[in-house]
Amino acid sequence: MSILVLGTVALDNVRTPYGARRKMLGGSAAHFSMAARLFTKVNLVAIVGKDFPQKNIDFLEAKGINLTALIREPSGKTFQWSGEYKGDLNTAITLNTELGVLSSFQPQVSDEQKEIEYLFLANVDPDIQRHLLSHMQSPKLVALDSMNYWINNKRKSLLGLLKEVHIYVANDQEARSLSGEHNLIKAAKRLRSFGPKMVLIKKGEHGVLFYSDKFIFSLPAYPADKVIDPTGAGDTFAGAFMGYLAKSKAINMLNIKKAITFGTIAASFNIEGFGLERTAKLTLKDLNKRVTEFKKCILL
Amino acid sequence: MSILVLGTVALDNVRTPYGARRKMLGGSAAHFSMAARLFTKVNLVAIVGKDFPQKNIDFLEAKGINLTALIREPSGKTFQWSGEYKGDLNTAITLNTELGVLSSFQPQVSDEQKEIEYLFLANVDPDIQRHLLSHMQSPKLVALDSMNYWINNKRKSLLGLLKEVHIYVANDQEARSLSGEHNLIKAAKRLRSFGPKMVLIKKGEHGVLFYSDKFIFSLPAYPADKVIDPTGAGDTFAGAFMGYLAKSKAINMLNIKKAITFGTIAASFNIEGFGLERTAKLTLKDLNKRVTEFKKCILL
Repeated sequence: MSILVLGTVALDNVRTPYGARRKMLGGSAAHFSMAARLFTKVNLVAIVGKDFPQKNIDFLEAKGINLTALIREPSGKTFQWSGEYKGDLNTAITLNTELGVLSSFQPQVSDEQKEIEYLFLANVDPDIQRHLLSHMQSPKLVALDSMNYWINNKRKSLLGLLKEVHIYVANDQEARSLSGEHNLIKAAKRLRSFGPKMVLIKKGEHGVLFYSDKFIFSLPAYPADKVIDPTGAGDTFAGAFMGYLAKSKAINMLNIKKAITFGTIAASFNIEGFGLERTAKLTLKDLNKRVTEFKKCILL
Repeated sequence: MSILVLGTVALDNVRTPYGARRKMLGGSAAHFSMAARLFTKVNLVAIVGKDFPQKNIDFLEAKGINLTALIREPSGKTFQWSGEYKGDLNTAITLNTELGVLSSFQPQVSDEQKEIEYLFLANVDPDIQRHLLSHMQSPKLVALDSMNYWINNKRKSLLGLLKEVHIYVANDQEARSLSGEHNLIKAAKRLRSFGPKMVLIKKGEHGVLFYSDKFIFSLPAYPADKVIDPTGAGDTFAGAFMGYLAKSKAINMLNIKKAITFGTIAASFNIEGFGLERTAKLTLKDLNKRVTEFKKCILL
């Protein structure tokens, strides 16, 4: 089953204790795709500007990503994010955000793409997320990510949209902010009450917590000691998670647990290089090998 | 196999969003004992003052704790800790510490107690920890806990002592502070290089990380949504961990993983009530039942 991902394709300026990169290919949809492609066909819905290098287009296409719905808008500049990580690299400090063409983004998908059943709405304006969702014919699994900016500035819109998705994906800070609960289990329960049957809270170096009425699943992160650049780890997680579910088709407890495990391991590779450097080279064999290692570290 | 625990028996003044208690029985050795007693005979080594209520003595004895080495010093007051928790209850704010008789504490144990093979050196002055350790005849498993105060003020003494223990138990903040490493895996490796063959890093609501040359084990916390008072959770963890190992005798990978699981679950009960309120009533049956529930939340 193929996947449609709505999100950003960006040029990132990133600085970590291990170096810096300028105008590096990034964005939620790019990171998501680089992991999801290992499991299934990925259709990317995003917008870039006139400054977006052709080599990035070529790169994404070479990775098998369908770019039919990647708008190339000649009148503006590509979304740029500038950020820095210090100390334990667990929290990004945003230095600058230039929306560029993102501010006038209206996603357009083909009739064929409207029939895709697996949908990931990465962090963009909830109204844009809703717009795309309204055009989908028969979504089977819709996951939504957001961020504090929308939680604070478009709360009502976001809450409305949450009633229409199956999975709400958030980091711990966002989960606490939207739910108003400090305790993460309480936060997950509150978020569940907002609509989505499944809540997936990403805790960075502390792993992930999944909540549904049927079961709770808590998984630590892969014990990584090589952290170069965590940018996109959450979207990489989501890419492998959704990719695995789309490939396995049945959405049941076992597959959800496996999908979370693959997401965890995909994210552990993402942080080993700047941007997409590591995940671009990633294979399913790499993933499976590290899943086996990981199991030794977590299973009783 | 019985256990000897060196630590504090205190009168705690605690305030959390769920209420407050004054001069409540607490301290590292008391919390440790309340969990370890479920697995084995516990010998408590500590000091209290003239103000220490007889009812607390009676309570500990009724729980089967051997108090032969609990010094009752008539010339001073019992160690008092006053603290508060806010928000997510993950970090204690120390409001006041009155050492009282603790400042002149010289642990004394009987000849019989000197032969105990399982030893937990809870957080007190490293010189006191060393003094006790030097009197033990044939320690088989020695675990040591400390705190930032000693890391900052008696670093050399602490580092010397680490060469003589098997397990260093620390919270994430202490592990980072003593190792000088932000990344917890790197921190664990550095701490391992200081001497102890095993490093156990407690991460509060994020679970625990165990490191040894032979294996790494990472376990999330029990997904608790009832957090009343986290005071003593780390010592409760250590109590069940050491208790399980003392009972099972063989110190191998499987038993260490099981011991960490019991520690995690014991801690999850501790936080459900003020001080020892919940763990005083705890049974091995309660522990086993929740271990079974926990496994459903963590196993693939």
